[in-house]
Order: sequence, then C-alpha cells, then structure tokens
Amino acid sequence: MKIIIDAFGGDNAPKEIVKGAVTSVNLIDDVTIALTGRKDVIEKELAEIGYKGDRIEIIDAPEVITCEDSPTLAIRQKKNSSLVVGLDTLSADDSYDAFISCGSTGAVLAGALFRVGRIPGVLRPALCPMLPNSKGGRTLIIDSGANVDCKPEYLVQFAVMGSAYLKATYGVENPRVALMNVGTEDEKGNDLTHAVFEELKQMPQINFVGNMEAREMLSGDYDVVVCDGFVGNVALKSTEGAVGFILNALKSTIKNGGLMGKLGALLMKKNFKKMALDLDYTQLGGSPFLGVKKLVIKSHGSSKAKTIYSCVRQAYKLYQNKTMEKIKESIDSLGEDSEK
Amino acid sequence: MKIIIDAFGGDNAPKEIVKGAVTSVNLIDDVTIALTGRKDVIEKELAEIGYKGDRIEIIDAPEVITCEDSPTLAIRQKKNSSLVVGLDTLSADDSYDAFISCGSTGAVLAGALFRVGRIPGVLRPALCPMLPNSKGGRTLIIDSGANVDCKPEYLVQFAVMGSAYLKATYGVENPRVALMNVGTEDEKGNDLTHAVFEELKQMPQINFVGNMEAREMLSGDYDVVVCDGFVGNVALKSTEGAVGFILNALKSTIKNGGLMGKLGALLMKKNFKKMALDLDYTQLGGSPFLGVKKLVIKSHGSSKAKTIYSCVRQAYKLYQNKTMEKIKESIDSLGEDSEK
Repeated sequence: MKIIIDAFGGDNAPKEIVKGAVTSVNLIDDVTIALTGRKDVIEKELAEIGYKGDRIEIIDAPEVITCEDSPTLAIRQKKNSSLVVGLDTLSADDSYDAFISCGSTGAVLAGALFRVGRIPGVLRPALCPMLPNSKGGRTLIIDSGANVDCKPEYLVQFAVMGSAYLKATYGVENPRVALMNVGTEDEKGNDLTHAVFEELKQMPQINFVGNMEAREMLSGDYDVVVCDGFVGNVALKSTEGAVGFILNALKSTIKNGGLMGKLGALLMKKNFKKMALDLDYTQLGGSPFLGVKKLVIKSHGSSKAKTIYSCVRQAYKLYQNKTMEKIKESIDSLGEDSEK
Repeated sequence: MKIIIDAFGGDNAPKEIVKGAVTSVNLIDDVTIALTGRKDVIEKELAEIGYKGDRIEIIDAPEVITCEDSPTLAIRQKKNSSLVVGLDTLSADDSYDAFISCGSTGAVLAGALFRVGRIPGVLRPALCPMLPNSKGGRTLIIDSGANVDCKPEYLVQFAVMGSAYLKATYGVENPRVALMNVGTEDEKGNDLTHAVFEELKQMPQINFVGNMEAREMLSGDYDVVVCDGFVGNVALKSTEGAVGFILNALKSTIKNGGLMGKLGALLMKKNFKKMALDLDYTQLGGSPFLGVKKLVIKSHGSSKAKTIYSCVRQAYKLYQNKTMEKIKESIDSLGEDSEK
C-alpha cells in the first residue's frame, strides 16, 4: 500500500509528521510512504532521525497552506502546497491509495472535494471520527463538521456510509445506527430529524435503532451516530471541553486537597495516566472523509508522531478490508433502491 | 414572595419536593410556598417531616402529568393536574410570583406558553440553565431545548434576554455574549449562525464577543452562550455524557488499579466528593423559562430536596432583583429599536 502524507500540515509539522512516517514504515511491512512538502527540510528531518531505508519518498512541494488562508482560495491558488500536491498525486496516480493530513480542516475538505472528487451518487462527503465508549468499544459520529447545512437525504447517506465503514473496516456485524436528537421518543426532534427519522426507519440496508440523546453518545449502546455537521461538531467539541474541564477540576482538587489528597494522587498517578490514554481518541486514528473517490484521512491539528502512526494503521486497515469499495457499493445499493 | 411548586412533577415526587419546600421556608424568611398536588398525600408528607408552620399551603390537584403523556394534549386534558393547576393559579392570581416544576420538560413549556403566555414582543421563550465554568463562575446557555427550529430573530432575542437575566439577577456588569458555532472566525457557521452573527454585531444592547466553539463553553471566557434549542440541548447533554463517562472511567481505573491505586483513591475520597459537588450544576438551581409573563422555573427531573431549595433561592433572587421586569424592558428596548 502507498500512502501520501502532508508533511507540512498541522501544529507539529514537519518534525512529528516525518517521525510518524518513519515509525509507520518500520512497524508495518506492507506500507510505503510519500511525504509532500519542502524537500530539503524533509531530507534534513529524515537524516536527523537516521532513516536510511527506501520506503519513504519525498514529493517536493514548496508552498504551505495555513489556518489563516481561506480554504477554497488556498486550494485554487497554492497549487504547489504540500496539501494540493498530495491530493493531486493521489487523484492522478493509481499507484497511491490514501492521503493523510493534519492541516486546516476546511482546506483538507475543500481540497478533497475539488481535487479528488466525490464518489458518483454521493451528495455530501462527511467526516466521521471514532470516539472510545463506556463499554470499551468505539462509536462513530457522522458528520462531525464537514456539512453545516444539511438536507435529510444527506443524513440518510451518512447513515449508510457510516454503517458500511464500520462493517467493512472493523467487522461490526450489524452496526446499530442512531439519530442524534433531543429525546429518544419517535416524535422528538426538529424538522430535519423528523424527515430523517421517517427515511431511516424504512431502510433495509441499515440497522436503525431510533433517536438518541447526546447524553448517550458514549454509552456504547450505539455504533453509528448520525447528525448534521453543525450538531456533530458541537457534540464532539462539547465532549472535548467537558473532558478538559474535569481533568482541570481534578488537578485543582489535588492541588488544594491537603496532604492526604496529594499523597493519594501520587499513588494514583499511574492510574490517571492509563485513564488519560483510554480517553485519548487520537489513538484511534483520524477521521476519514467518507464519500470522496479515494481515501483521505484528516487527523487532528495537534497530532504527534504517535497519531500519524495511528492514521497509517487505520489507512492500512481500510485498504486491507477494501472499505472504499464497500462504501461505493453501499451508495450504489441506495441508487438502485431509489430507482425502484 | 409567594412561590407555587408542582409537588407531583419529577422522579422523586412528592417526597423530595415537599422536603425541599420545608427546607426553603425554614431557611428563607420572606418566602411562602403553595404546593400543588394530591392534598392527602402532601399532608401526609408534611406530617412525616413534622412541619407545623403556616407558610406552606396546599392547592389540591388530583391529576398527574407523566412523561408518557403528550405535552400539549396533557395541558389541555388534565386540567386538574398539579402542573396545570399550578400554572393557572400563577396566571390568575397576582399574589403568586413564581412557579417551579421538575415535571416533563415538554409539558412544563407547553403549559407555561398556553396557560401563562408570552411577554408581549417575545417571539419564543427559551430555557437557559447555568453551568459551572473553569474560572469558578457560571455560564448561561440559551436556548437549551425549548425551540428546536429557530429563526435568526429568535436567537437575537435569546441574546438580549440572557444578558438582561445575568445582569439583573447576578450583577454581571457587561455580560460577554458568544454565539455557539463550529469555529471562532467571523465567517464560520451555517445559514442560521451567519444571519444571527450579522444581527448581534450591530446591537448596542449587548456585549457581543463573537463566535465560540463548543469546546470553550465551560472555559469561563463567556457569560452567555447563544444557540438554537437543538444545538443547546446537544451541547448540554454531550457535556453531561462526558462527565458521566469520565467518572465511570475513574471508577474502573480505581477498581482495576491495584493496591496502590486503591489506597490512593481512598486518600482522595474527600477530594473526589468535593469535585463532584463543584460539577453539580443542579446546585445552581433550575432553568428559568425566559420570555413568559411570570417566572416559571424548570428543574431537573431527578431533582431532590436540595435542588428544590436551590430553585427557591434562585426564584427569590430573581424576585428581589426585579429580573422579570428587566427582561420585559430588554424586549421593549428591542421593539423601539426595530421601529426606528
């Protein structure tokens, strides 16, 4: 498998990206990597790490897209950026299978749409990160922010693509699909969810289990949570914010907790570390942009080498399981249905 | 001040409600309470507690509205329910100043709208619970679920009412109003937030500080967070879910953490308890339904006596500070503006 990685996207580029690439080829035999970005800088980073193998190539791309750039403008104007060069290579050359970037979300999405393109039949590609849940499994949130104004038919496709993704990649037999809503009763919701609910409950392709409240998102009772991108983004970031809030509260509790509290915290240090690790969703990789022709994975802007490696593993898993083909099939099956 | 409390709303009714009422009159001199519900049952509860004072009256209401009832139907059909009798009394009798219920949200909102009515000029009343934030203050979320399909002008009024509420009740000088969005940049958002952003930035009545990501909701950098009710509900419940998720993770970490971890947890027990208390937003009272003619407070369905007392304190604070009058004024000022 050949994976292109944007070496100049994200807060820790290029050092951590290059390090992650080296870790990946060292640990996964079947993978070769192409890094896009300033050749001289990448060569220097590789030399510093001491990588001497032949499974990392460099595709020179002198420009960099930053978060200050307007996404759509940047895609059009910075044709020699690490992002656009990476996406164009993915699109033009069949020998490349995937592209990973930690760059600006807007630019990665716009780039994937305009330089790689949608799978025929897909109305709107969607982002779908996975979160760890209370039962030790993972829950997929689709869409988490690519589409902030949605029509019902977009969410119907999100449900189908999310199901196909989990089934193909992680062997989840009959993924339980829930619709994010303000209550669990069938009649709850706004105009959008009412329309989506009616559609989903009639679909033989998916295992629709009904409405779900955001409180239950991490309960482990659902595999795929369907929502519009605005709502998904708020749900995801509220969760992140609450986690940060509690860990802060925990710290200040310990700090102001007297001798006993401090001693207790010291004894629990290892346990706290393990917990933080369990909660770290970047370990599960990045978010694929489902619905574009080839595999594009958006990783967190603050990704370090470890996360890059997680994303490469994730891409490899999708490749091995022919996930992209199965997503195409799931969308095709929808088309045949609607033609009936 | 005279407060009506729905003694038969919520999971712990009537016992905890009655207990909370007794605590309230014992601790706040100026307040008298009217409990609505089955007279015989309430009398028995009062006798059990041993309350012999004359500051709690009972208004008999034999019917009960449950979560299984359709809210609007229940309001029309169960005219002798503790909820409808309470709201009708509030509406008809000027000597009563506020109404508190832990009953079904939908029924309380429908009841407040149809039996008490909106302040002239208010397009949609809104729920606005307060959350503790990382700086030790509180942040108001408006709307948290009363209106799941919103027009821009509703959110504009939410901003104005939320500001007036914080200013009047808690003396917040110049409340920082933020618009919940998927990013902080001015141009971020969906059709709704784009329209609201343009309106809010032109309003002299409020201190609009721009877009905010859900991740920052509890940061303490904002006083009023404006959003549509669907989004507010998702943000609030995602936060609740994440808190539950982490506390669970903490418990299982301790359980599986070996002897050292367990000893540490034991030493930290007091600190954990304090933290849980700091995070408990029910301590801040319930959520007023801003925009109806008289003060209606919706408290959490799982409220216990302590929360009822918090709600009574909250109602008393609003009363002392003439908050309801100031909300009316804030809406009037908007009308004059738009007539210009």
